[in-house]
Amino acid sequence: MSFFDLIKTRQSVRKYSGKPVEREKIEKCMVAARLAPSAGNSQPWKYVIVDDFELKEKVAKETYSSLVKFNKFAEQAPVIVVIVIEKAPLVTQIGAMIKKKEFSLIDIGISSEHFCLQAAEQGLGTCMLGWFNEKPIKKLLKIPKNKTIGLLISLGYSESDYKLRDKIRKDTDKILSYNEY
Amino acid sequence: MSFFDLIKTRQSVRKYSGKPVEREKIEKCMVAARLAPSAGNSQPWKYVIVDDFELKEKVAKETYSSLVKFNKFAEQAPVIVVIVIEKAPLVTQIGAMIKKKEFSLIDIGISSEHFCLQAAEQGLGTCMLGWFNEKPIKKLLKIPKNKTIGLLISLGYSESDYKLRDKIRKDTDKILSYNEY
Repeated sequence: MSFFDLIKTRQSVRKYSGKPVEREKIEKCMVAARLAPSAGNSQPWKYVIVDDFELKEKVAKETYSSLVKFNKFAEQAPVIVVIVIEKAPLVTQIGAMIKKKEFSLIDIGISSEHFCLQAAEQGLGTCMLGWFNEKPIKKLLKIPKNKTIGLLISLGYSESDYKLRDKIRKDTDKILSYNEY
Repeated sequence: MSFFDLIKTRQSVRKYSGKPVEREKIEKCMVAARLAPSAGNSQPWKYVIVDDFELKEKVAKETYSSLVKFNKFAEQAPVIVVIVIEKAPLVTQIGAMIKKKEFSLIDIGISSEHFCLQAAEQGLGTCMLGWFNEKPIKKLLKIPKNKTIGLLISLGYSESDYKLRDKIRKDTDKILSYNEY
């Protein structure tokens, strides 16, 4: 599959079948996530894979509330991946401080997209979740208090009736220019 | 090329040949960058492609100083891509505020990696540059003062003697665990 076909195949999947995800497939996704580039090769990430059914249920319940329900679909996903931001080496931290830029968030974006694209290539569906209750999830997974969760990814096989959607994006002339903003 | 082969092919290229980059190839990278997912589909990016020689020289000079020289190689690259962070819709902004998470940086990471992987598939080399002097670059490219530059990417054909390096990464057991941190 060409890269272009792959990125068209990857879409946010919000309807999962009950089929469990093989750990070998998860580990292939991790190989891809691990090889991602990062600022000063700092690799500021740790992936906690939640595939224990009861634990996953509890984590999923922390991705929505009675008011904000758009992540409720995560309950159906057989796996939730929790990406913890790890401290970058001091030199990268100092650079980030001077330039007032949280490189680690950029890095988390890159690595997690490697994960999701590798999942798509294996026929798996994912959805990145930026909205979640951090504190209870940290407690559930014994993540040290001083760590931050960057992102969650729901993972699983999509429902058989789940269709590939057209991607709605801004027009190219809104996001591209040459030699001047 | 499988996705795995593609991510092994992509590496930070810091030595460029003089060969100019075809705009069709840049535009293919942009198609990939444009299709990237983002928080609430906010697509908080604008890509300014700098391929005018003199302008590019000036931008490149703002990626290093007499003290911090590790980006000096950017002078050789025929193209520098400047990724401006655009405001997300209000609902995404409010979400980011409540959750104290700069989703736009995660999104910039995802989209720019789409750009770089599509470049690699076309035989082009890239390097993401997080360290640069923002103010003068904004002035050079007429980027509005209230905007922020997220990232720069150097782009070009690598020198013919440039070899594929082994990737040095943390051991998997340092970045992966199941059901507990």
